[in-house]
Amino acid sequence: MIIVLKPGVSDEQVNHVVQRIESLGLKAHLSRGTYRTIIGVIGDEAKLQSTPLQAIAGVAEVIPVLPPYKLASREAHPEPSVVDVSGVKIGGGYLAMISGPCAIEGAERLDAIAGAVKAAGANILRGGAFKPRTSPYAYQGMGEDGLKILRDIGDKHGLPVVTEVMDPRRVELVERYADMIQVGARNMQNFSLLTEVGSTRKPVLLKRGMSATVVDLLMSAEYILSQGNPNVVLCERGIKGFDNATRNLYDVAAVPQVKLLSHLPIIVDPSHATGRPDLIPACALAGVAAGADGVHIEVHNCPEQAMSDGPQALLPEQYAEVMKQIRSIAAVLGKKVSPLPAPVEV
Amino acid sequence: MIIVLKPGVSDEQVNHVVQRIESLGLKAHLSRGTYRTIIGVIGDEAKLQSTPLQAIAGVAEVIPVLPPYKLASREAHPEPSVVDVSGVKIGGGYLAMISGPCAIEGAERLDAIAGAVKAAGANILRGGAFKPRTSPYAYQGMGEDGLKILRDIGDKHGLPVVTEVMDPRRVELVERYADMIQVGARNMQNFSLLTEVGSTRKPVLLKRGMSATVVDLLMSAEYILSQGNPNVVLCERGIKGFDNATRNLYDVAAVPQVKLLSHLPIIVDPSHATGRPDLIPACALAGVAAGADGVHIEVHNCPEQAMSDGPQALLPEQYAEVMKQIRSIAAVLGKKVSPLPAPVEV
Amino acid sequence: MIIVLKPGVSDEQVNHVVQRIESLGLKAHLSRGTYRTIIGVIGDEAKLQSTPLQAIAGVAEVIPVLPPYKLASREAHPEPSVVDVSGVKIGGGYLAMISGPCAIEGAERLDAIAGAVKAAGANILRGGAFKPRTSPYAYQGMGEDGLKILRDIGDKHGLPVVTEVMDPRRVELVERYADMIQVGARNMQNFSLLTEVGSTRKPVLLKRGMSATVVDLLMSAEYILSQGNPNVVLCERGIKGFDNATRNLYDVAAVPQVKLLSHLPIIVDPSHATGRPDLIPACALAGVAAGADGVHIEVHNCPEQAMSDGPQALLPEQYAEVMKQIRSIAAVLGKKVSPLPAPVEV
Amino acid sequence: MIIVLKPGVSDEQVNHVVQRIESLGLKAHLSRGTYRTIIGVIGDEAKLQSTPLQAIAGVAEVIPVLPPYKLASREAHPEPSVVDVSGVKIGGGYLAMISGPCAIEGAERLDAIAGAVKAAGANILRGGAFKPRTSPYAYQGMGEDGLKILRDIGDKHGLPVVTEVMDPRRVELVERYADMIQVGARNMQNFSLLTEVGSTRKPVLLKRGMSATVVDLLMSAEYILSQGNPNVVLCERGIKGFDNATRNLYDVAAVPQVKLLSHLPIIVDPSHATGRPDLIPACALAGVAAGADGVHIEVHNCPEQAMSDGPQALLPEQYAEVMKQIRSIAAVLGKKVSPLPAPVEV
Repeated sequence: MIIVLKPGVSDEQVNHVVQRIESLGLKAHLSRGTYRTIIGVIGDEAKLQSTPLQAIAGVAEVIPVLPPYKLASREAHPEPSVVDVSGVKIGGGYLAMISGPCAIEGAERLDAIAGAVKAAGANILRGGAFKPRTSPYAYQGMGEDGLKILRDIGDKHGLPVVTEVMDPRRVELVERYADMIQVGARNMQNFSLLTEVGSTRKPVLLKRGMSATVVDLLMSAEYILSQGNPNVVLCERGIKGFDNATRNLYDVAAVPQVKLLSHLPIIVDPSHATGRPDLIPACALAGVAAGADGVHIEVHNCPEQAMSDGPQALLPEQYAEVMKQIRSIAAVLGKKVSPLPAPVEV
Repeated sequence: MIIVLKPGVSDEQVNHVVQRIESLGLKAHLSRGTYRTIIGVIGDEAKLQSTPLQAIAGVAEVIPVLPPYKLASREAHPEPSVVDVSGVKIGGGYLAMISGPCAIEGAERLDAIAGAVKAAGANILRGGAFKPRTSPYAYQGMGEDGLKILRDIGDKHGLPVVTEVMDPRRVELVERYADMIQVGARNMQNFSLLTEVGSTRKPVLLKRGMSATVVDLLMSAEYILSQGNPNVVLCERGIKGFDNATRNLYDVAAVPQVKLLSHLPIIVDPSHATGRPDLIPACALAGVAAGADGVHIEVHNCPEQAMSDGPQALLPEQYAEVMKQIRSIAAVLGKKVSPLPAPVEV
Repeated sequence: MIIVLKPGVSDEQVNHVVQRIESLGLKAHLSRGTYRTIIGVIGDEAKLQSTPLQAIAGVAEVIPVLPPYKLASREAHPEPSVVDVSGVKIGGGYLAMISGPCAIEGAERLDAIAGAVKAAGANILRGGAFKPRTSPYAYQGMGEDGLKILRDIGDKHGLPVVTEVMDPRRVELVERYADMIQVGARNMQNFSLLTEVGSTRKPVLLKRGMSATVVDLLMSAEYILSQGNPNVVLCERGIKGFDNATRNLYDVAAVPQVKLLSHLPIIVDPSHATGRPDLIPACALAGVAAGADGVHIEVHNCPEQAMSDGPQALLPEQYAEVMKQIRSIAAVLGKKVSPLPAPVEV
Repeated sequence: MIIVLKPGVSDEQVNHVVQRIESLGLKAHLSRGTYRTIIGVIGDEAKLQSTPLQAIAGVAEVIPVLPPYKLASREAHPEPSVVDVSGVKIGGGYLAMISGPCAIEGAERLDAIAGAVKAAGANILRGGAFKPRTSPYAYQGMGEDGLKILRDIGDKHGLPVVTEVMDPRRVELVERYADMIQVGARNMQNFSLLTEVGSTRKPVLLKRGMSATVVDLLMSAEYILSQGNPNVVLCERGIKGFDNATRNLYDVAAVPQVKLLSHLPIIVDPSHATGRPDLIPACALAGVAAGADGVHIEVHNCPEQAMSDGPQALLPEQYAEVMKQIRSIAAVLGKKVSPLPAPVEV
């Protein structure tokens, strides 16, 4: 940690800061410059992280040197993590292809969509049973009935399933049905929910909040990891931008940033990032080329009848087309779509 | 609702859209332009809000004409609402002056701060017992012990108290101790939490999320209102911006925007909006001048020992200084700081 | 300047950095921490500003300690500057009330508007002769004919005039007619233009670019100041934000930020910041309450016939109403609208 | 164009709007809904574009249906344009690989870098002679001497050259030396400069401004096209974002957006978009995968001695590595790096 003092700081103020540092068992290393005085803090920076040094008179700026996350950092785990979702691998050269409708709307429809995306190459089935809707008057999802349908259809097609949980009181319920639990963008800093999913051992798909920096995303992952659940997969799904031509702003550079800072896998979600089917294929390819460990794309066989987010879904045939190119680009980078687990004999 | 069709749309596609509209009991009014065809939908637009018209082939754009919120709208309630927090009025010419430390750290300290802010003119005491911290390793608050202290100190000074709740499972607990419940920026779209506080009748202080538009904020208020709780006070506390010189970007224009669209009171929080004590006074005055129904400012008597957000707190004497100017500016606009309720005889 | 080295940096790399620093006549002060090594640079930081230290192997981060602007800084000029625009003072307790139509559209209309805004209390007349329009097909302004009209009407009413220049080849022309030269937001980093207006001695109204930080704005002011022209007035007029309900995002906190960093006056322009007449009055008051040295508001007597930006203009009677409240709020802060210069005897 | 009227608009107000429309030779088509009245305008929308309908009493919103650009639109030119830069093709399946140092610093250095990037596969050489620097005290470039060096080194290696112009007074000079003229991000809305480069017939590399939407970028291209110069290549180089971990926010989705709206080629510049060599390779690949017609990467053989932007340059060997992967990904999409023109016999 580096503490930059204000111009014209008094000796007394400097001493006060030094004493605070030393009282925590750390060493202060003073550099008096022509214009400014700076203090380098030597020792375990974590001890200082909850001390409001910046509030001390004479302090201009406090600059941390260590990242505020630990378990999520590359330093803690130099090799890339591979998260196993009931047999499907994510990371370490294996790509997750997560696909399905925005909301679960019934068994028949989900069955048709699951069959189509599996045929195209998807290896994880998604579908929302509890939907975070901006309007209290919009469709809120089928709840537990939806979870049952998702589980059944997943089993029928041999696809692991992922679904979102929004309420800490429902984590146990969702855990019972799903192979992977999704924490949505709006809940990325719902710390009660993060703590709750961290206390399970289910893989968690953690979506980046719309106003979260990459470090914020890693801090939220740290909440889950620090509860003992190591199975976290991050997801870039668009942040707030000023150009309303797209629903969000797809930050593809987050992918290599996460790779540099963390061992956790990261996938991309061009469906939510753009909200436009005409941009999803190009953005999916861009994500894979940037190094993503998977792609999340919403697919619906009749978007105009979808209960939620229909306009942003790809048709099954469009999805199949993108999958072909994803495979070719993955191959350029020496990666491949994770195979499905062998079907269990009954 | 206006539906803009794509150039070169076929008659068959136009008819399909018209049929969808009419099947919902609405009337479609077709305008064929030189370059584009548009359809005006006549009838109750709400019927269409969950229909994904945009996903129909040939549709270029769907433009809603009515606001998606109802109970929060000026149309529903032309007069400004006045929310009563245990005797302190917010709105309709009365200003709330909410102040106190970021976190409750103990009875003695809170007592000292409460006395100081009351003397300066604050009329509601704040203090966090459950803290939403970006890091799982940072101080998380005193929990129920903190709530008890807050209640006691509030009672001692005759100040109603407000505190944040983050977890739907704790709404009942917080409701027991607080006069007003705060939903923080990170939880503005935590719909489970909104529904839960909506089912109480306690006044709710709803803070704007960092990536929320003004309409998003009103939609979250609508969640609470639609549960039957009419006591919502909005709070502008800064959104994400590109200039890291301040913690957030203080969007003072949100105040008059809310006034035009809604009857709900709105206050400003320059402490979180800027994160800098040297900017808080000017931004507090700006908020009042823009028409805010109150100001939320964090005050601490020893910021360098604060457990949370110390660097952004004002000292009690700085707060007293700002309060003087706030009163003068409020007077220019014909408003005044709400008086405290008369002390209850025992 | 502080140089943070990467973890695991070699001694050789450290020495290489130290040598680079010393070769520039500066002193390097090494702090070896448990996890990181940092180097404090002692001496004239400016010598290092064009040296790409960050590109040296082993360097993680370079953190400047001094601001990159000099002439614009508070350190260089501790007292607030007062800029004199042909007798109207801006700064040091005097407010500029700049008003007029977006574009000059003819003598008669400008005469009527000038009379109205002067009666309401404006002290500088604005009007565009060269208009920066996003579309090449939009109205581009009257050019020199417009400048002549502006000069004549300004003289008739005894109001100094300000108008925008976009092309370095026209600075001389504009200088001939105007009392103050405006550099628009889109040209805030048009360095050729800044250099050219810096070589005049006319007061310059420098508008903040839509993606400029406060420091970027001060750096652009520095371009003008460094050419020898000390008469710079800054203007906050909205930056890019994600909520399209307003044209731009009004960053009122920029006002106190500039006051802390610089001696230059700063005014606000709620017309361009919001683009909405229904928000301009509240935002104007907010700007004055935040400490602005003036307000720029577009006024038109028939907005629906305006050649440019009609929808964002106030009517003269709306302007008169705002002016009353501006004066009251200015008085609270111990400021006043600058009086007009005494009329010259002929 | 669609005009949405305010609730409770009077018949008189409706008639006034209709008359304005009809007075321009257009037809107004009225739809009176239950809650709102809307007017569809039939005829040539361009006639209305400079009429401030929004300022008319009773008008709530004016929604254009046609894009405000014409020559840049896909409608005007359904086939993708291929821009020829002295024999190197950009667009239509051919990729431009533009590379070189940020600033021209001398013949010897440029020669070495040019040799290296050509060997790696670059087909256009870049180098700045006039540098837009945020600080007036930073290195401003070699000027005409730099242009001469660039021309000579380009000729020596058989590479066409591109360089930036910032001042309309220097367009003629730059045109004399360069094969392609760059308009930088800060000047994207410098309309005098756009008009000037539009009056040449040289290919123009138009970089997206940091606060420009995709439509803003196309409008700036329209300025150039409308002057008669059809040779415009767009460039995505990062926009303003809230996460300061990267210099700008790389908006890769702009690539497919431009492809849908326009026939103009678009390349990506991950050097300026990220400002970080450790992110450039992944972002370059993402751009090509998203459909870009080329990649602009800054390369320097000794970044720590670069006069400008050294820290963001790739080393020649890093560039060669990326080029290999770019070629593979281009092949997946059926594209290839444009070959160099055959050397001219002397």
